[in-house]
Amino acid sequence: MESSAYYFTYEDIHRTVERLARRIQESRFDPDVIVAIGTGGFIPARILRTYIEKPILTVGIAYYDVNNRPMEVPQKIQWIDEVEKKLKGRRILLVDEVDDTRSTLAYCLSELLRNEPAAISVMVLHNKRKPKKAEFPPGISQVFVGEDLEDYWVYYPWDALDIEEHYRKARAQRSPGA
Amino acid sequence: MESSAYYFTYEDIHRTVERLARRIQESRFDPDVIVAIGTGGFIPARILRTYIEKPILTVGIAYYDVNNRPMEVPQKIQWIDEVEKKLKGRRILLVDEVDDTRSTLAYCLSELLRNEPAAISVMVLHNKRKPKKAEFPPGISQVFVGEDLEDYWVYYPWDALDIEEHYRKARAQRSPGA
Repeated sequence: MESSAYYFTYEDIHRTVERLARRIQESRFDPDVIVAIGTGGFIPARILRTYIEKPILTVGIAYYDVNNRPMEVPQKIQWIDEVEKKLKGRRILLVDEVDDTRSTLAYCLSELLRNEPAAISVMVLHNKRKPKKAEFPPGISQVFVGEDLEDYWVYYPWDALDIEEHYRKARAQRSPGA
Repeated sequence: MESSAYYFTYEDIHRTVERLARRIQESRFDPDVIVAIGTGGFIPARILRTYIEKPILTVGIAYYDVNNRPMEVPQKIQWIDEVEKKLKGRRILLVDEVDDTRSTLAYCLSELLRNEPAAISVMVLHNKRKPKKAEFPPGISQVFVGEDLEDYWVYYPWDALDIEEHYRKARAQRSPGA
């Protein structure tokens, strides 16, 4: 069993989102709209909507070009476009699965801030305790983190090619002596 | 226990997507891009991407106006816009969770067909056996259905306010004598 990795089940994720939703509701941050970063934010954002009934917009970026070569600068796969003007003066909750190097979050926050929202907060399931390659831009209201993790690899259930094996590993990780 | 409802766990959904992915791969349909209908298609599309590694674009429509009044005509919450031209000549796989009245699928298919894709197919987790309010427009390549269901209410795990209760109901439904 890999000790330097985390295995989460869908129910873990669901419960983490439920906890986060409660904290967001108890906070002073009342979003008008949820913006999910594709594709890591899709599942957390969709579960969140069960608890916080707000519309979800999505943005997608990639660090690879059409020939699958890595790029320095992220490329917008899909952005918000004609609804972007809807963000002006609104309170945005940006959702992703993990704050790893922080590059993706920082880029998306900077771009969204150009639309002059009234406020913008961030929700992530997990934050890795590690040096970050980017900082949150100034003006972020709050950062809601489900759990802080060591800098290990995280296996999310939606990435499992074999979901039974994934669940076995998740259970093994929690069993006494693991 | 409600006999006229279905309860699915996340693992059910994951396995259904895995089966569908295999069928899509065995078919002659090789998509360039996955288009997920928000918000029902987010989770199936994200799981699908684990098996079929294609970029996901999202579209969102609503049948309610800003004052929460029902509308006859769907309103685009988010569409593909500047990347829409990327659809011309491409093979699209449109993903949603359920084919219920077929209205949403038919609307999205008609709109996507305006971009002159090379081909367009549909994947849904579930199809309800019932009279449909709309037909698939002509020119759809294939419709991949995970499972045909009676016209009962479907409880998806991502809609559960209490995930433990949801799993209890899903298990009870499968136990002998249920």
